Amino acid sequence: MRKPRIVVLGAGYGGLMTVTRLQKLLSVNEAEIILINKNEYHYETTWLHEASAGTLHHDRVRYEIKNVINPSKVEFIQATIEKVNPEEKKVILENGEVEYDYLVISLGSDSETFGIKGLDKYAFAITNVNAARQIREHIEYQFATYNTEVEKDEKRLSIVIGGAGFTGIEFLGELTNRIPELCEEYDIDRKKVRITCVEASPMVLPQFDRDLVNYAISLLESKGVEFHIGTAVQEANAEGVLIGKRGEEPHEVKAGTIIWSAGVRGNSIIEKSGFENMRGRVKVNNDLRIPGYDDIFVIGDCSLIINEAIDRPYPPTAQIAMQHGEVCARNVAKLVQGKSPLEDFVFDDKGTVCSLGEDDAIGVVFGKKIKGTKASVMKKVIDNRALFMVGGPSLVMKKGKFKLL
Amino acid sequence: MRKPRIVVLGAGYGGLMTVTRLQKLLSVNEAEIILINKNEYHYETTWLHEASAGTLHHDRVRYEIKNVINPSKVEFIQATIEKVNPEEKKVILENGEVEYDYLVISLGSDSETFGIKGLDKYAFAITNVNAARQIREHIEYQFATYNTEVEKDEKRLSIVIGGAGFTGIEFLGELTNRIPELCEEYDIDRKKVRITCVEASPMVLPQFDRDLVNYAISLLESKGVEFHIGTAVQEANAEGVLIGKRGEEPHEVKAGTIIWSAGVRGNSIIEKSGFENMRGRVKVNNDLRIPGYDDIFVIGDCSLIINEAIDRPYPPTAQIAMQHGEVCARNVAKLVQGKSPLEDFVFDDKGTVCSLGEDDAIGVVFGKKIKGTKASVMKKVIDNRALFMVGGPSLVMKKGKFKLL
Repeated sequence: MRKPRIVVLGAGYGGLMTVTRLQKLLSVNEAEIILINKNEYHYETTWLHEASAGTLHHDRVRYEIKNVINPSKVEFIQATIEKVNPEEKKVILENGEVEYDYLVISLGSDSETFGIKGLDKYAFAITNVNAARQIREHIEYQFATYNTEVEKDEKRLSIVIGGAGFTGIEFLGELTNRIPELCEEYDIDRKKVRITCVEASPMVLPQFDRDLVNYAISLLESKGVEFHIGTAVQEANAEGVLIGKRGEEPHEVKAGTIIWSAGVRGNSIIEKSGFENMRGRVKVNNDLRIPGYDDIFVIGDCSLIINEAIDRPYPPTAQIAMQHGEVCARNVAKLVQGKSPLEDFVFDDKGTVCSLGEDDAIGVVFGKKIKGTKASVMKKVIDNRALFMVGGPSLVMKKGKFKLL
Repeated sequence: MRKPRIVVLGAGYGGLMTVTRLQKLLSVNEAEIILINKNEYHYETTWLHEASAGTLHHDRVRYEIKNVINPSKVEFIQATIEKVNPEEKKVILENGEVEYDYLVISLGSDSETFGIKGLDKYAFAITNVNAARQIREHIEYQFATYNTEVEKDEKRLSIVIGGAGFTGIEFLGELTNRIPELCEEYDIDRKKVRITCVEASPMVLPQFDRDLVNYAISLLESKGVEFHIGTAVQEANAEGVLIGKRGEEPHEVKAGTIIWSAGVRGNSIIEKSGFENMRGRVKVNNDLRIPGYDDIFVIGDCSLIINEAIDRPYPPTAQIAMQHGEVCARNVAKLVQGKSPLEDFVFDDKGTVCSLGEDDAIGVVFGKKIKGTKASVMKKVIDNRALFMVGGPSLVMKKGKFKLL
C-alpha cells in the first residue's frame, strides 16, 4: 500500500510550523511529507519592515528551509505554485504538478490596494524579501540622486506611508531611526526630509488602547512624521499621492517613495483554485478544513476564522498562523493515523507588541499594557520565540535578536 | 595700502596644491588668499571609480578643505561660481561676487558627450562624489529590482561602459570585483550579469605599451567583460545603447546602466567667461597665465599645454594638475613680491599606473613597465603621495590606502 502523501504549500509561519510538527508526529513509514515553496528560504514577514527601512539586513530576516526540516522525513520542492485542482487532488506548479492525499494551504497574503488608482504602479508594498530590499534601495537611490541635480527635486526626500496599522507604524519606527543615517550618508539636510502617514480610518492601531496609541503617535511625530488620520489616499502617481478627508477637495503630497501598508488579502492562488473566499480568505471549519473538502486545510493569512467575542474575523498575524500550524499538524496526523475526532482551533491570545524602532514599542502582553524599553525588550522576546518554535535554540542563536548592552 | 588679493577657484588637485603652497610662500601681511569651492570638501577625482563601483565608500575619497588650509592665511568660501569677469577683475558667484588682484582658475573638467544622442539623459558620468554615489545606488537599485518583477527584465543586470580609457578601464577593474558581492546581496545568478565596454578608437589605453594593455584586457575579459573596440556608441536610450563599427549597421546592447567615460572637456565656466578655448581648455603661456591676462592663471584640466615631443596636448591628469599648482603658487608669489621672471612650467613625468581592481594594475613608473601586484602596490603609493603633497603625513594616515596583509 502506498503511503499517504501530505503536501504543504508555503514555508511561512503556518507552513513551517505544520511541517516541523508533522515530522515529529509521524514516522517515516506513516506518510510522505512534501513542502513546496517559491524560495529556498523562509523569511520573517513580521521583520520585513526593518529590512525595508534598511535598519536590519535582509539576510538577518531569512533562513534556509533545509536548516529546519528533517530531510529523511520531508521532501522540499522549490517551485512556483499556480493553483490547486481539488477535484483531481493535484497542485499545479509553473513547471509540473504534484498529487496529494492531504493538502495544507499556507500561502500567506497579497497586498490589497482596494482598486485605488495608481497604487499598483507607483507604490511599494512590504511583502517579501525581494520587495523589502527594493524599497531600501529605492529610498537610497532617491537620496543619492538629490544632490546630483541642478534643479533640486524635493519629492525625492518625501516618503508617504499609506496605512497606520501595524506594518505602517512599525515601518515608521524604523524609518525615522534610519533617516538621520541616510542624511549623513548622502549629505542631505534632515529638515528637508518629509515623512507623511495617511490613514483612511479614524483610528490608528485600533487593536490598542488610546493611551498606548497616543504614546506611539507622539513619539513618531517628535521624530518628524506628519500624520493625516481619517484621510484617504485617492490616487498615486509619478508625483506623489492625492489625499483627502471625506467630502473635501483632495490635495497633493509630492513623494518620490510611496509605501502602501493599508491592507492585505489572501493569496491569489485561493481564488485561482476556485475556493469560495472573501478577499482571498477561506472561511474554514473549526478543524481548519475547507467546508466540503475533508482533505484540504487552509491556515495562516488565507484562512478566515471568526472571533465570536466580537463577531469579527481574527486579523492575520504570525501568532495565529503558528497556532494554526500546530493544530493543523495534529489534525493531519490524526487523519493519517485514522484517529478521530479532529481538534478544534481555539486562539490563545498571548498579546501583541508593536515596535517603534530599535528601542521603543507599545503592547499588550498577557493582558498587561506596556510601553518604552520594556515593550521593546518584549518584542525581541516574541521575535525570538517565533524562531524557537520552528527551529529550536540553534535557530535562535543564529538569527535571534539580542540587545547589545 | 590694501594687500593684494589672490583668489583661487576650485579645490581640486591643482587648486588645493596652489593654496597649500601659497600659504607657505607668503606671509599674512603680503597677501589675502581666498579659496572658493562648491563643496566644503575636496575629493580625489582619481578614486571616484571606486566609489562609483561601490568598492570604496565615498567618505574615503574626500576630506574637508578646512583640514588642509591655514585659516589665519586662507579664507575659504563655499559657493557656486557662475563665471569670471576679467575686465572688472571679479568672480561672479550664484549669490554675490568677489574681486581679485590675481586669479587662479583650477575648476577641473566636465564630461564630454560629443553630442551623441541620449547620453546626457541616459548615461551617468563619474564626475564627482554626488555622481559616484548615484551610480553606486543606481546599480544596486537595478539589482534589487530584478527579483521583484514577474517578467524578468534582463537589462537591469546589464551595464555598458562607454570608453576604454583610463577611467573606463579602472572602473571595470572595480566593477568586476564588485559584481560577485552584488550577486550575493541580491540573489542574482552571476552568469546573468553582462558587462560591455565600447570604445570608438581602435586603441584601448593608448598611453601604454600593447603587452601591458593585453594583460589588462585579458584580465577583465576573464572576469566577464565583453569588449567592443573600434566601435562607437551612436545613441543611448531607455533600453540601452546602439553601437556599431564604421560603415556597419548599428546593433543594440540592452542596458539598465550606462556609464560614459569616453572623454572630458574643460569646465564650462571657461566658456561662460569668454576666454578663448578649445573644448573648455585655455592654451596658456609657459608661465600658466592666459595670453593677454597677466593676472589670471589657468591650471589643471582647464589648461592646455602642448607636449612638444609629440606635438599634442598633455592629457589632463592629477599628476600634471598638482605640478601646475606648485609652479602656479611660486609664480603668484613672485607677482605679489614684485619678483621676476616668472617660472616656466615643465612637466616631470613620474609615470602612470592604471588599476585593475584592488589587487592588480598595469603601469609605467620611472620609465619601467610593471604589472600585477607590484603595480597595484605602486598605485596605492601614488594615491597616498597625492594626499601627502596636499595635507602631509596626517592626511595620509587619515585617508591613505594601506593594504591589509
